[in-house]
Amino acid sequence: MYRSHNCGELNASNINTEVTLAGWVQKSRDKGFMNWVDLRDRYGITQLIFDESRTDKAVFELAKTLGREFVIQVKGTVIEREAKNKNIPTGEIEILVSELTILNSALTPPFTIEDETDGGEDIRMKYRYLDIRRNPVKNSLLFRHKVAMEVRKYLSDLDFCEVETPYLIKSTPEGARDFVVPSRMNEGQFYALPQSPQTFKQLLMVGGMDKYFQIVKCFRDEDLRADRQPEFTQIDCEMAFVEQEDILNVFEGLTRHLLKEIKGIEVDKFPRITYDYAMKTYGNDKPDIRFGMKFGELNEFAQHKEFPVFNAAELVVGIAVPGAGNYTRKEIDGLIDWVKRPQVGASGMVYVKCNEDGTFKSSVDKFYDQDDLANWAKVTEAKPGDMIFVLSGPANKTRTQLSALRMELATRLGLRNPEEFAPLWVVDFPLLELDEESGRYHAMHHPFTSPKPEDMALLETDPGKVRANAYDMVLNGNEIGGGSIRIHDKATQQLMFKYLGFTEEEAKAQFGFLMDAFQFGAPPHGGLAFGLDRLVAILGGQETIRDFIAFPKNNSGRDVMIDAPAAIDDSQLKELSIKLDLK
Amino acid sequence: MYRSHNCGELNASNINTEVTLAGWVQKSRDKGFMNWVDLRDRYGITQLIFDESRTDKAVFELAKTLGREFVIQVKGTVIEREAKNKNIPTGEIEILVSELTILNSALTPPFTIEDETDGGEDIRMKYRYLDIRRNPVKNSLLFRHKVAMEVRKYLSDLDFCEVETPYLIKSTPEGARDFVVPSRMNEGQFYALPQSPQTFKQLLMVGGMDKYFQIVKCFRDEDLRADRQPEFTQIDCEMAFVEQEDILNVFEGLTRHLLKEIKGIEVDKFPRITYDYAMKTYGNDKPDIRFGMKFGELNEFAQHKEFPVFNAAELVVGIAVPGAGNYTRKEIDGLIDWVKRPQVGASGMVYVKCNEDGTFKSSVDKFYDQDDLANWAKVTEAKPGDMIFVLSGPANKTRTQLSALRMELATRLGLRNPEEFAPLWVVDFPLLELDEESGRYHAMHHPFTSPKPEDMALLETDPGKVRANAYDMVLNGNEIGGGSIRIHDKATQQLMFKYLGFTEEEAKAQFGFLMDAFQFGAPPHGGLAFGLDRLVAILGGQETIRDFIAFPKNNSGRDVMIDAPAAIDDSQLKELSIKLDLK
Repeated sequence: MYRSHNCGELNASNINTEVTLAGWVQKSRDKGFMNWVDLRDRYGITQLIFDESRTDKAVFELAKTLGREFVIQVKGTVIEREAKNKNIPTGEIEILVSELTILNSALTPPFTIEDETDGGEDIRMKYRYLDIRRNPVKNSLLFRHKVAMEVRKYLSDLDFCEVETPYLIKSTPEGARDFVVPSRMNEGQFYALPQSPQTFKQLLMVGGMDKYFQIVKCFRDEDLRADRQPEFTQIDCEMAFVEQEDILNVFEGLTRHLLKEIKGIEVDKFPRITYDYAMKTYGNDKPDIRFGMKFGELNEFAQHKEFPVFNAAELVVGIAVPGAGNYTRKEIDGLIDWVKRPQVGASGMVYVKCNEDGTFKSSVDKFYDQDDLANWAKVTEAKPGDMIFVLSGPANKTRTQLSALRMELATRLGLRNPEEFAPLWVVDFPLLELDEESGRYHAMHHPFTSPKPEDMALLETDPGKVRANAYDMVLNGNEIGGGSIRIHDKATQQLMFKYLGFTEEEAKAQFGFLMDAFQFGAPPHGGLAFGLDRLVAILGGQETIRDFIAFPKNNSGRDVMIDAPAAIDDSQLKELSIKLDLK
Repeated sequence: MYRSHNCGELNASNINTEVTLAGWVQKSRDKGFMNWVDLRDRYGITQLIFDESRTDKAVFELAKTLGREFVIQVKGTVIEREAKNKNIPTGEIEILVSELTILNSALTPPFTIEDETDGGEDIRMKYRYLDIRRNPVKNSLLFRHKVAMEVRKYLSDLDFCEVETPYLIKSTPEGARDFVVPSRMNEGQFYALPQSPQTFKQLLMVGGMDKYFQIVKCFRDEDLRADRQPEFTQIDCEMAFVEQEDILNVFEGLTRHLLKEIKGIEVDKFPRITYDYAMKTYGNDKPDIRFGMKFGELNEFAQHKEFPVFNAAELVVGIAVPGAGNYTRKEIDGLIDWVKRPQVGASGMVYVKCNEDGTFKSSVDKFYDQDDLANWAKVTEAKPGDMIFVLSGPANKTRTQLSALRMELATRLGLRNPEEFAPLWVVDFPLLELDEESGRYHAMHHPFTSPKPEDMALLETDPGKVRANAYDMVLNGNEIGGGSIRIHDKATQQLMFKYLGFTEEEAKAQFGFLMDAFQFGAPPHGGLAFGLDRLVAILGGQETIRDFIAFPKNNSGRDVMIDAPAAIDDSQLKELSIKLDLK
């Protein structure tokens, strides 16, 4: 071992101890007769002192040659520091060095290894191994490990069994695009990397392994949006002999455990709202409920007056922004411009100032009297001093626009405290959603989700109205987990594939093994999956997932550090019986 | 929840309790007026009783329709069983059923769901979800989970951080064949699936994450031998600021912990032997030391006599087989035939019976007198009643042959008790091995392994003699883990690539990022990886890994259950800019 202690543990109680430390040179301050070096490792920073009068001359001179990020080993004595630093655990002591060994030299790093670095995203990714030396990244990786361990412990203690499912599986062209892997031993055939272990976990239920989980990599060959990765990690779970209520309870318990163990925060029982309620109340199926600003539907009090815009709209809907009644004309105009940007797409916005004296001043005073506006205030739960913003138009679009405004205002008002946690369940998702382009219905969750039995009859008459036993866990405006009760009989599964536009042959070719399995005694079952990258980032109080992934890829799916993907040898292609077919 | 209890937990203390159970029908015995059903779930079997005189008629009749593997839910009362079964925890009670719900019917399974099944390997793999219902497979998966959890807890408690490394990386044509993944977004380029996270874990060391582990899938596109899988799981570990001794101690501690926690077995400090000693003493770098039969080299006492076969041989070497002195001529001939089979390849075998009276009787009495044979007995540590078998020929080949015989005899003599555990370390592996075909040296472990500093000079003069800081952990004749101290400076790594026949350009193209990293302050580091599949199988007392993998592939790399790999759509190929190039 190159060290007797790490750089984060020595304090006043160790004074006069002989120690050996190893680590990186964070910085050195050479005052001529005295030279201080901050030695850093994963655990902290310890100050070394080289003193002309007390240090061996050769050691003293060698210390002057140390550059930033040199790797060194020192032996010395723990002594009391003159100028104590109360901000770090080792701040009361320093090491009077007697021996110094340079274990490795270092070129000057391309960015500073500090909490606030001067390195941009690209250079940090290229030298990710240097970036990981920085506290924000290092601590994110340690935090991720802690979360994953707690998840495993909690579920194991409940008799869940982690089962590894295969990575080399079969491509199913439905849903997102698969990454595929040519098989050398099976000429002309391909494996696919799993988008999730969905069918395997269901087969484990058929196999009697009634509580399964796995922390597992999943793969989707999608065009990458910001903060999406082609490989990502799920906490994948499934249970047999359960109803939706049981699953919600178990995984609410898990989440509550994480918040308590990791963040020291106790949360109440999670609110449960339906998808319909979420859409009507927040314009969003993953509402951030750390703050109010619930939607108030104003059709009753805003239509059939003289304002043609509202009269023509399918939906008139508003929110009361707390304390925004004193916004200036300029601020209001800014917000109107904001909602009219193409990314939001509103055609205009009406506002109502709720004055402290109980009166109202609106941009539509020409059409609405004080009683009308008082009704609007009532519906939107506006208080004196608030501002009501109202949008109108087609219902779905308008809700989405108002949701965007609600989130933007919450951010501006500082209502999205990353250290406050407001989890909830959204339940009763629609089974199907209409793809506007193809006019076909797609499974909203996936084709294995069970419709609510009482809605089965609607499949023939009004498929869009069929609700599923499907649920999402939402935390601070992010979907962090989602799942469903699954179909567990062959006939219903066949029917579902039919409604989704599979021919019988397609269904059999792709999912025949699952439908076969359902014939041999499949128990009722269901489950869910959490996105670990996102969960960890949110628990860590961060917006982006990238610092919680050791070696992330960029938006082109490239690892710029190892420079992958890359061309491969012709001999490899030949062995795999494929050739390039460049456009 | 479909149940109040599971099928493994009810006993006499629950008598008179009303319970709800759910599970599979293991079997039913219909005596006309009385019908017993064994209900099975993951946790055990509970007997249900339907009694004409006590059970509701409709329930009684419904119970008669139950087939094997039907999924049912029952409500009823726990009562004392008349004919108790002491062999199972629930054997004192049965459930007098009042309500019965058939949750799902089942076709007759294609093989019996019993500990000893009538299903062959192929059919069990096709219906793996039924196979998993069988105790031997189910218990293997639960056992695997337990081992993995203990590994994680042990290493976490020592401040190791589990870091997920990427699965989509870059192909490196050295070593085994990579599985590759065409990139749609980077036309003509490919990712590779990792054969191990080797370079990433070293970069984590450069990044200061000084104790890393990961339980991780790895991939090798090799022609599959029996009991190899194209995807397999490693416990991958790395540490910085350590020497070989530190690594051996940590992972010896882990293994001792597993043996104690999982098997309840305390083992002494692991013996450490060098690679040279292992080869000379056991003819094998992964010796099974649960038994003796150490090799005795007999050149000194067997050559320069009148026996030309031995005189011409590079090596004459024997083992003393305990208690085998009374083997019949037929048994001995059988063993001679066994070593002459092409799989072993010896050209003959000499034997010496060690009589109880201290005399010897050998197949070469013509050439050797009793004193000669007494020397042989001394060297092989033979005792009266033992049999010495002697092989001769080229040293390496002869050792391999005698090793095969040693293992075979141990098996026949019952010396390989799967519930006895004899771990050891083999150290000082050669750095390089000569590839007989190409005449080139290859890295025996991998190109990142550090030569022993004292052997560095031999690299120029006698590369095959250079020893590495490399080590294997061996358990019961299996290599279960191996690793090395790594090179951590650019110059040595460049030199190593040169000796391995890389051009400078090749080294830079494939591993430039690692050599770059070594310039920015790389600490001394090393590590190892355990094969989890094998480790779990051995701890579980089994020879084959397949039952410890939920969904294994067959020897053609196929998953016969889901029928993968498979053809993919032309549109997928086109998007990936590849086409088939069938032979």
